[in-house]
Amino acid sequence: MTDSMNRRIVLASRPTGAPTEQNFRLETVEKPTPQAGEVLLRTIYLSLDPYMRGRMSAAESYAAPVAIDDVMVGGTVCQVEESHNPEFAVGEWVLSYTTGWQSYSVSNGQGLLKLGMNPSHPSYALGVLGMPGFTAYMGLLDIGAPKAGETIVVASATGPVGATVGQIGKIKQCRVVGIAGGEEKCRHAVEVLGFDACIDHKADDFAEQLAKACPKGIDVYYENVGGKVFDAVMPLLNTGARIPVCGLISQYNATSLPDGPDRLSLLAGLILTKRIRMQGFIIFDDYGHRYGEFAKDMNQWVAEGKVQYREQIEQGLENAPSQLIGLLEGKNFGKLVIAVNKPL
Amino acid sequence: MTDSMNRRIVLASRPTGAPTEQNFRLETVEKPTPQAGEVLLRTIYLSLDPYMRGRMSAAESYAAPVAIDDVMVGGTVCQVEESHNPEFAVGEWVLSYTTGWQSYSVSNGQGLLKLGMNPSHPSYALGVLGMPGFTAYMGLLDIGAPKAGETIVVASATGPVGATVGQIGKIKQCRVVGIAGGEEKCRHAVEVLGFDACIDHKADDFAEQLAKACPKGIDVYYENVGGKVFDAVMPLLNTGARIPVCGLISQYNATSLPDGPDRLSLLAGLILTKRIRMQGFIIFDDYGHRYGEFAKDMNQWVAEGKVQYREQIEQGLENAPSQLIGLLEGKNFGKLVIAVNKPL
Repeated sequence: MTDSMNRRIVLASRPTGAPTEQNFRLETVEKPTPQAGEVLLRTIYLSLDPYMRGRMSAAESYAAPVAIDDVMVGGTVCQVEESHNPEFAVGEWVLSYTTGWQSYSVSNGQGLLKLGMNPSHPSYALGVLGMPGFTAYMGLLDIGAPKAGETIVVASATGPVGATVGQIGKIKQCRVVGIAGGEEKCRHAVEVLGFDACIDHKADDFAEQLAKACPKGIDVYYENVGGKVFDAVMPLLNTGARIPVCGLISQYNATSLPDGPDRLSLLAGLILTKRIRMQGFIIFDDYGHRYGEFAKDMNQWVAEGKVQYREQIEQGLENAPSQLIGLLEGKNFGKLVIAVNKPL
Repeated sequence: MTDSMNRRIVLASRPTGAPTEQNFRLETVEKPTPQAGEVLLRTIYLSLDPYMRGRMSAAESYAAPVAIDDVMVGGTVCQVEESHNPEFAVGEWVLSYTTGWQSYSVSNGQGLLKLGMNPSHPSYALGVLGMPGFTAYMGLLDIGAPKAGETIVVASATGPVGATVGQIGKIKQCRVVGIAGGEEKCRHAVEVLGFDACIDHKADDFAEQLAKACPKGIDVYYENVGGKVFDAVMPLLNTGARIPVCGLISQYNATSLPDGPDRLSLLAGLILTKRIRMQGFIIFDDYGHRYGEFAKDMNQWVAEGKVQYREQIEQGLENAPSQLIGLLEGKNFGKLVIAVNKPL
């Protein structure tokens, strides 16, 4: 069954603080018609990721903001529904970063990553085998550079990045301590993902529990949340610790800096006296040329069951705004994906 | 002329905030007597360096604090006055890190770096050819990794680290902008050291001047001061900037954190969105194994006149406390060295 119309979600207004559904608008427009050399892409899965909050703001960031009334950006897994390009067959699966939050789009093929005619888990290309997995892999291995026996700490332990960081850490024979919101996620991190421990950041004695779980301090803190987790991590950092910074989800909805004292010099002093390396990275900009390395290792680890992967698949493009809002509050459990259209 | 007594300066008490002369005590004690296998070292030059402030505090840092009543630590260039060790001849020059602030000491030879019988500039081993030069070299080249055409900013531009950073930057064909206290130092940085520009941090419009001197932003900020210099640098940092952190002299006398807002998350956010690498290092711990590389390059650069070096030599061990206090206020102009004894 195919639609005659295209449904899309555009940015209606910029949020102040946490986004609300009013910042988005669902539109129904004509389904685009592919010209010679083009393909019509049918969106099957849309990925929801924390970085999208940044694109909703006009503030300078690592990527241009989405313009008001433009379709929200995002990674999608699509099928070719109609092809006027000899390089793409009808029914073929592709990963697209130019489609965004809509049910149909047209492409000349540029930038599409081919996933084959019958991939076993097409949506994995949005998670463990795609951008989040690649982010986990390069940030941990290249900047974090963990050595066997060291202690790695990562938050959002059941999210697609954190879960992968922790499992790679176990493959590299490290002690891995996760941080997650709530008992159920913590149990999953230990029992399914194989973390050595996982601390609930909602616990009153969170900082004490984290310290207890890291009796030899922290050698690699994979930063994806910031805020009170970073505060609890700071005093535990060992000399020579590495901090890859891939996200700061706890800060994305902040509208002002917290009250003082101003701890900027405290962080600089810690970096100096503990000889810490703290480094931000944007996965495709910094490591695009190393994608092959990642794809080879990760496909093998997933096939061998060394890396487990959990998805939360929600139905319907119209639910993407509320799901993204929930993601920013930590409500998802596993990689959040929107099922947009049924496969062909 | 040799003394029959040993003069030494011990830590009398720990400072709160800026050190005062009351934190030090000059003592006159028996000159030590070398035993079989030992040498008597006559201190010719004592190096004064910002890191010494850290050693006066009990607070945890990268090295153990000096104990109360212990001789203050520091690098010295000494001559062997008496030798009971066949590996050392009387009159030979050595670099010692075990002597500290005293006019005589005894060593079994371990850890002494031989400088020969007749070095042309023995005190250079405390500066451009020693720890500060090595710190400049590795921090800039290994962590800063400057590419031709990039912009490097460094403070304490006429100090032994900053001056060397800037001159290596010029050798590497970068734009080099220094920061120093006062017109005379700024002129020296440009006219003698070859910096492209040097900004007086005492100017009211310091931040604006710095921005003007860096029209293409900042690619490498070599951090040795912190405080308001870092505040002015932050908005100018380019994507992919590197910040080697070797010191934070503006913070060493601080007794509390500044008032808010708390900018810790601001710095973390900047590191993320600009993909910045910020890394502390302690030169001999991190790079001791690469000393040979440095010594080869720097000896050549100094011999060829590509690296200029300015010293401020002050007479008399008894003046070391007041001189260190002045150093922490930025009063020195060039590498501060105390002439302790006349050479043999």
